[in-house]
Amino acid sequence: MSDLNHPIDAGEADQLAARFEAIVGPKGVMRDPAELAPHLVESRGKVTGWAPFMVSPADTQEVAACVRLAAKSDIALVPQGGNTGRVGGALALAQDRAILLNLGRMNKIRALDPLDNTLTVEAGCILANVQAAAAEADLLFPLSLGAEGSCQIGGNLASNAGGIHVLRYGNARDLVLGLEVVLADGTVWDGLGALRKDNTGYDLKQLFLGSEGTLGIITAACLKLFSRPQESISAFLGLTDLAASVKLLAQARKDSGDSVVACELIPRIAIDMSLKHMPGAVDPLAEPHDWYLLMEATAGRPNSGLSEAFEATLAAGFEDGLIADGTIAASEAQAAAFWHLREILVEAQVKEGASIKHDVSVPTSRVPEFITQANEAVEEVMPGIRPYPFGHIGDGNVHYNLSVPLGMSPEAFFAGEDEIHHRVHDITHALGGSISAEHGIGRFKVGENARFKSPIELALMHKVKDALDPAGLLNPGVILPAARVDK
Amino acid sequence: MSDLNHPIDAGEADQLAARFEAIVGPKGVMRDPAELAPHLVESRGKVTGWAPFMVSPADTQEVAACVRLAAKSDIALVPQGGNTGRVGGALALAQDRAILLNLGRMNKIRALDPLDNTLTVEAGCILANVQAAAAEADLLFPLSLGAEGSCQIGGNLASNAGGIHVLRYGNARDLVLGLEVVLADGTVWDGLGALRKDNTGYDLKQLFLGSEGTLGIITAACLKLFSRPQESISAFLGLTDLAASVKLLAQARKDSGDSVVACELIPRIAIDMSLKHMPGAVDPLAEPHDWYLLMEATAGRPNSGLSEAFEATLAAGFEDGLIADGTIAASEAQAAAFWHLREILVEAQVKEGASIKHDVSVPTSRVPEFITQANEAVEEVMPGIRPYPFGHIGDGNVHYNLSVPLGMSPEAFFAGEDEIHHRVHDITHALGGSISAEHGIGRFKVGENARFKSPIELALMHKVKDALDPAGLLNPGVILPAARVDK
Repeated sequence: MSDLNHPIDAGEADQLAARFEAIVGPKGVMRDPAELAPHLVESRGKVTGWAPFMVSPADTQEVAACVRLAAKSDIALVPQGGNTGRVGGALALAQDRAILLNLGRMNKIRALDPLDNTLTVEAGCILANVQAAAAEADLLFPLSLGAEGSCQIGGNLASNAGGIHVLRYGNARDLVLGLEVVLADGTVWDGLGALRKDNTGYDLKQLFLGSEGTLGIITAACLKLFSRPQESISAFLGLTDLAASVKLLAQARKDSGDSVVACELIPRIAIDMSLKHMPGAVDPLAEPHDWYLLMEATAGRPNSGLSEAFEATLAAGFEDGLIADGTIAASEAQAAAFWHLREILVEAQVKEGASIKHDVSVPTSRVPEFITQANEAVEEVMPGIRPYPFGHIGDGNVHYNLSVPLGMSPEAFFAGEDEIHHRVHDITHALGGSISAEHGIGRFKVGENARFKSPIELALMHKVKDALDPAGLLNPGVILPAARVDK
Repeated sequence: MSDLNHPIDAGEADQLAARFEAIVGPKGVMRDPAELAPHLVESRGKVTGWAPFMVSPADTQEVAACVRLAAKSDIALVPQGGNTGRVGGALALAQDRAILLNLGRMNKIRALDPLDNTLTVEAGCILANVQAAAAEADLLFPLSLGAEGSCQIGGNLASNAGGIHVLRYGNARDLVLGLEVVLADGTVWDGLGALRKDNTGYDLKQLFLGSEGTLGIITAACLKLFSRPQESISAFLGLTDLAASVKLLAQARKDSGDSVVACELIPRIAIDMSLKHMPGAVDPLAEPHDWYLLMEATAGRPNSGLSEAFEATLAAGFEDGLIADGTIAASEAQAAAFWHLREILVEAQVKEGASIKHDVSVPTSRVPEFITQANEAVEEVMPGIRPYPFGHIGDGNVHYNLSVPLGMSPEAFFAGEDEIHHRVHDITHALGGSISAEHGIGRFKVGENARFKSPIELALMHKVKDALDPAGLLNPGVILPAARVDK
């Protein structure tokens, strides 16, 4: 029996830390509260958890030994990569009697094979370093997202990360050939094959990809690499209306032969806020427009007629009344400036004040319908609320964010948060959509997710969890409600 | 208690058939031995199974009702599509007290969405009809394999089929956005979402894709469509040696910017046998070569410089001594003739006499090493045996077939089959390969698979099977040994 707020008391923590230190050495156990603090708070700073210490194994066998020790000691493990997730998936909560298990020391590039186009990396490699390793061999690892400078590939795979290149290259799940995973019983599954085709039974790696550390701990992965684009073209387009966005994208995909690699929807409010709050931000177009598309297409070889095809799409877009104004980047620097504008709009919204966020997806063609319906609903709940929807329209993925009405206090704003989430998610669901497109469920969306998943689907998920982690040792309370109760 | 050879006696079969007929109607139950015969024999005619009858539901609810009735009646179900598989995965065996459940009547195209690039089809749709439905909308469903005129999409997905376009578009698994599945308890999981991004928990569809009907019965799928290629170029190349094959492929992928969609290795013996046995077969090159590559590259837009890039690869290939002779198809008809040669080589081998087959994969770069080692091993086991290796070298997938030594009886040849399988699979495994690249495990490879899977991996597969089909109702004895025993 222990206090809910500190269910592992100082004495037990001392004993536990000593036992883990025997596995990972003094460098592998972090107890200092100041050092520990950033690992205990979730990435938006909304929630702070609690754990007596964090353990950082240096290799796969140490991870396995830590899992066995945790099982024996009746404590749970919360696997953590760069702690950049958006749904509290790497958050340790006191009631779970959990310690953090950080993969950051496992940061070796194990192998790169340029004939097979494969790259084998450990879970703790920073995504940007994985990209760089591929680039050094003149190859491409296409996963790309805002946190790439600090997120870790293990976390990307555990959460099936998305990002801006999903349209062409797929989600993180699609970029994996093999995995090495420490299972809940502390055994190591070596599924690190580098095969393009392998039909020898259930594709077990799929269980762990996207399971947010609840079924096993990913310690290494064999990733697919691609040829690096030899030509790239970016355009910043002012649209005549919202509906034009999906029509234009479909046309661009067709004209370019599926060469569009990124397509981002940007609302005028995001340009306004960026101009207001972010020094150096520039509106690429002379007049304001309600909606913009930022589109990039690439070709794998030079002189491939990409520019001509892309320009033809845009010319037809003007003619058909889809595009009001637009500009094609004349240089790499200008393309980078367009993409910079896309990147800073998240921070610009933070600077504007309190915000409520969603990460939804609907079938691509229904994005305009979704935004229109959601805007009406949130205005009804809270007059003056300022929708700030942007995102990866090519995947039907909208970050349907909302800024506080002018003059309203954050407290009054957040008092409406639950109702707003409900209304937005109801609309998403009615359009055949998902309430978490790329961020996962973590701890924050467990309740909302249960509203929309069928009992049959929830039962299937519980069966999988019970089969692979019957004691509820791994990341309890993430994706599914925790089976463990406070002891 | 019942006879092992006919564990369901005529009286019980009458009763059962009547009960199933009450669900699916008279058209849905097939008992006539002559009609039933082709459904009871596996596709190569090597093994004939037994079942009292075959039931063919017309819709998902009928499938679900059949599953519930089977569970209540203590009989097993063997799902069957076009019965074109190569590993006995749709074979009903007497000792399992099984009936066949054929999906062929569920053959509706439910929806095609050209803005979302999605196609929703029922499991019993013939693959060629799925391709045609996409083509009618000027879109592409890229799955393509020899049996496409008779295999069904449900079977393709249940077995995660491969084929010739995996290099560019992935396996069947990669072409699926959503599934509808009847579970072992007779409930229907509606996972027919059309989303490109959905991270709301475990990706349950991955469980059923490639599970060969042992975890659930796929009744419908939402498939990804692609833009149709606007330009295509095929080349038939005589190589200076086997090692040149993978070097040339890597170079072609790089030069063309990942535009190679198919790359098939063909040995001289396959050309010889085709010329000997297949009327109208023509050798595209003037002189014989030990090894050939048949390569196709496509571009999504016209005038994309594809020919120039491809020709540059070939010119460099001649210069570097990789290519001895070669020809680029000057017309669609000539390209079709090249691909016809690739298709008929399977039948040519059949006409030459008895054969032993393998469907292995290794990392692409190791294909030459694999073939060299395997050739030495089989010659050691059986002097005079004639290796006939061909296949999808771009995926590292070799159909390592062997023809009977000249003058040897089939009986003497097949007496060595088990030893040959063992030797070839041992070499495959030592090179990090798979003993079933694209055909699956079915019933025929259960034993061999168990030799190579780690106990940890087999235990994981059993856990998944036990969680989803605890009674062993679905396709017993496929992938894993049957849990049921004769009653």
